[in-house]
Amino acid sequence: MKKENLRIIPLGGLGEVGKNMLAVEYGEDILIIDAGAMFPENDMWGVDLVIPDFGYLMDKKERVRGIVLTHGHEDHIGALPYILRQIPAPVYGTRLTIGLAGVKLKEDGMDGIVPLRVVGLREPFQVGPFEVECFRMNHSVPDGVGLSIHTPRGVLVHSGDFKFDHTPIDGEGADMARLAQLGGEGVVLLMADSTNAEVPGFTPSEKTVERAFEQVFSAAQGRIIVATFASLISRVQQLVNCAQRHGRKVAFAGRSMVDNVRMAQELGYLTIPEGMIVELGAIRNLKAEHVVIVATGSQGEPTSALARMAAGTHKQVQIVPGDTVILSSHAIPGNEEMVSRTINKLFQRGAEVVYEKVAQVHVSGHASQEEQKLLLSLTKPRYFLPIHGELRHLHQHAKIARELGMPAENVFVVENGYVIEIDDAGARVKERVPGGWVFVDGSGVGDIGPAVLRDREALGRDGFVVAVAVMEKKEWKLVRPVELVTRGMVYLPDAGEFLEKAAAAASESLTTGNPVRDEVEVRERVRRALGRTIHDEIGRRPMIDVVVVGA
Amino acid sequence: MKKENLRIIPLGGLGEVGKNMLAVEYGEDILIIDAGAMFPENDMWGVDLVIPDFGYLMDKKERVRGIVLTHGHEDHIGALPYILRQIPAPVYGTRLTIGLAGVKLKEDGMDGIVPLRVVGLREPFQVGPFEVECFRMNHSVPDGVGLSIHTPRGVLVHSGDFKFDHTPIDGEGADMARLAQLGGEGVVLLMADSTNAEVPGFTPSEKTVERAFEQVFSAAQGRIIVATFASLISRVQQLVNCAQRHGRKVAFAGRSMVDNVRMAQELGYLTIPEGMIVELGAIRNLKAEHVVIVATGSQGEPTSALARMAAGTHKQVQIVPGDTVILSSHAIPGNEEMVSRTINKLFQRGAEVVYEKVAQVHVSGHASQEEQKLLLSLTKPRYFLPIHGELRHLHQHAKIARELGMPAENVFVVENGYVIEIDDAGARVKERVPGGWVFVDGSGVGDIGPAVLRDREALGRDGFVVAVAVMEKKEWKLVRPVELVTRGMVYLPDAGEFLEKAAAAASESLTTGNPVRDEVEVRERVRRALGRTIHDEIGRRPMIDVVVVGA
Repeated sequence: MKKENLRIIPLGGLGEVGKNMLAVEYGEDILIIDAGAMFPENDMWGVDLVIPDFGYLMDKKERVRGIVLTHGHEDHIGALPYILRQIPAPVYGTRLTIGLAGVKLKEDGMDGIVPLRVVGLREPFQVGPFEVECFRMNHSVPDGVGLSIHTPRGVLVHSGDFKFDHTPIDGEGADMARLAQLGGEGVVLLMADSTNAEVPGFTPSEKTVERAFEQVFSAAQGRIIVATFASLISRVQQLVNCAQRHGRKVAFAGRSMVDNVRMAQELGYLTIPEGMIVELGAIRNLKAEHVVIVATGSQGEPTSALARMAAGTHKQVQIVPGDTVILSSHAIPGNEEMVSRTINKLFQRGAEVVYEKVAQVHVSGHASQEEQKLLLSLTKPRYFLPIHGELRHLHQHAKIARELGMPAENVFVVENGYVIEIDDAGARVKERVPGGWVFVDGSGVGDIGPAVLRDREALGRDGFVVAVAVMEKKEWKLVRPVELVTRGMVYLPDAGEFLEKAAAAASESLTTGNPVRDEVEVRERVRRALGRTIHDEIGRRPMIDVVVVGA
Repeated sequence: MKKENLRIIPLGGLGEVGKNMLAVEYGEDILIIDAGAMFPENDMWGVDLVIPDFGYLMDKKERVRGIVLTHGHEDHIGALPYILRQIPAPVYGTRLTIGLAGVKLKEDGMDGIVPLRVVGLREPFQVGPFEVECFRMNHSVPDGVGLSIHTPRGVLVHSGDFKFDHTPIDGEGADMARLAQLGGEGVVLLMADSTNAEVPGFTPSEKTVERAFEQVFSAAQGRIIVATFASLISRVQQLVNCAQRHGRKVAFAGRSMVDNVRMAQELGYLTIPEGMIVELGAIRNLKAEHVVIVATGSQGEPTSALARMAAGTHKQVQIVPGDTVILSSHAIPGNEEMVSRTINKLFQRGAEVVYEKVAQVHVSGHASQEEQKLLLSLTKPRYFLPIHGELRHLHQHAKIARELGMPAENVFVVENGYVIEIDDAGARVKERVPGGWVFVDGSGVGDIGPAVLRDREALGRDGFVVAVAVMEKKEWKLVRPVELVTRGMVYLPDAGEFLEKAAAAASESLTTGNPVRDEVEVRERVRRALGRTIHDEIGRRPMIDVVVVGA
């Protein structure tokens, strides 16, 4: 039988290539890897969530045989509700990953919309023409895997988000044996996590965090409050271990933290001794030195548990001198200011604050350069597609591959949407298909684009003025003075005189000079008069709109 | 004569204490140290510049004897035009610092408004009752100094922005001898730069950057484009040195870069061999391997030279494969996303990009922990006031002082506006005076506050809707259907049907149910109907305003 071409397409990812979604296509069959969402960047005004643009798949829905998840973090499963609503394909993943995906679908009222299939490690399963196998990789959530995908065009290896951790919290190292075996048998294309391609050496083991925790726990006299991602189940386990050693009870704060802990306990991924958990409301009955609170808010998100504690608006927890607060996290790019403010506010309330810059209370979940080399050496791929990173990271990762002796023409640095095609002659970069992202705002998906964002940016900078001109529409005479409505431009209680002046200039533009001829001219004159007056008086350029009302 | 109390007041600084301005007050006399401005943070919507709130000084104007500048960076001189307009006191500083301050005042049309006095190193001058002396400290701009201030209550030492650099570019190390001498004679209070109090060890010498430049220059085949701060005169000198060694000419891009280079050359702080500078427009006549372009834009600022090159909108420089771009800078908190995007765009255009994460093409201008210890050990102050840093940095700096044996009660961690008072009994923290910041927006100074920012934030998130209801005002009957004006909420070309529905709901709220009684009720009903409809339909919460027009 004549072989089809194999096509690999990174789809979506806010600047990061193939992070949130990647498609593998052979003939009439498509396999999706991951379905994640991203938080908007600072200049994505008012956007709630960013999901991959899966428009490329919309006329191929019935050809999608399945979605395989590499692990349960938001940026790999967060877009599932949006994608499954359009493309109800079965979802595959390891137990905890499927558990986390299930929680997410339930939140969106989408239980049972598609089969969620738990797959085991090293247990190949068939998705259309693809034989897929999950193997253990280390990451900052348990049950993260890499994938091998046996295709008629050879074996693909996908690293997932990974690091090599020889002393992981759950005791299970990455499956280097399987990687080496695959490498021995022949890998046609490796796709690997580039996040830390700028970082030399090895990423420290998750275990090193426990040493830092130990130091803090030994020194702390009062309560210990730790903020971390709700999905860092291993981190939570380490905190529970520390708390137990130091005779402290643990309370959880923040909805996602409480939910994730419960789910991870039920599935056996988190072991908490009987009686160690207390309700947040019950900590007041304990001595300060017997309390650990594990909370959301490590990114300074204003509505999170920690941010509310720092701001003094948390109902159950007030920060007091004697408290020790640990931020066990790394600020995601764009969140630095919020994190820094949270730290300052905690100091202001008298807490001792421990964070990444002053103690190793966080390590990355991603492979550094030496681990990336190790993966390349183990799998010995013919072709290499760096994924999971911005263009800068992919370039550094590609450089590493070339340093290891891969021919430059076998390494593909591409942006989302580019098709890598493998045929008899080998692999190459082909055409580009839509592969960007889509904004979710409120209940709208994809209805917000650059035009609306530009308007929001302008409004956010200088506010708006709407002028209402009541006109007699036959002769185009102004019936009464122009009225202004404005927000975000000036502080209204102090601006009465200035606004009167601006309104007068608008009225005057309609009552002096040549007669007004039509509505277009009314708008134009008022807009110009207002724009000029406002800029002359206060040097600002608000958005100006004019409503003409016929009298 | 009875001694007055000495008062030290850190004033202004966006989160950083005493960074932009600090007052020293003795009896009827006030000395100001620095007058800087800060760039707004990401959530200071539409604000152009942030300056210190010097309201405390407004009823004491005639008591201000002088303003001493420690160095010529924007965050230490940028508020001069605003402050001198209100408080025209003489300004003191070393030669380059006064040169930079002069350029700034000239830009604002304020030449000659106050005397600008150049002072020498180790040459005491009198400002009211204060004998002030400048001594050399190293920083990332030449001519940076620390200050000793002899007062009737003892000697104050102010570090300025500093590091100890044993191999500075201009060949002048920090004046450790003077510091030790002052320490021997007795320092009552040290105020010192806390910026890098979280960083262990020593900050590398500015010289190490030249080694990194050398490597890049040796490897580069085509043009070299370097982005850095226009005020990093030493950095520019190093680039010129490298260019000369490698037979390249230098062109400067960006207005502030061109201006600063010219001024620094005139004052002798920058040595560029005859014929090495070429106009930017003339580089096309040179071979690529003979060109270095030194440009503004190291923070990814959208209108800077580098950002325009990266975006493909620079008139004279297009980035092409073969170009090597160096970002010789560290992203200021809040700018990380912009810097990262610039790097990605440069890679996208085929450039080789070298930046802090992958090579030491930048070093900090601020002392790390061991240098902070050295300063404390040399000056042996009785009291210590950590300044120049956010609360988190001040706390770490205070911890260092305590580790060196200072009693905790002699170390003052305060926020801006707190008064440190020294009398016969010693020093202590007293009352708080206004000492925050003021926003500059357009030509308005201080007229924008939290209320306007909240409105701008709301507008930036979901836009606005203004409803115009034309009413017969006796019976409060709606004369014609409600009209809507909206921006930033939805993409208008696609939203016709939705907007009709919302307008209809607004009209209906006035024509059904109990009769409307007054204008307040009109507004309320329309606002509620619109809010509900919009939220139900698209899940957004725009700002809603209602204009009632009498028919």
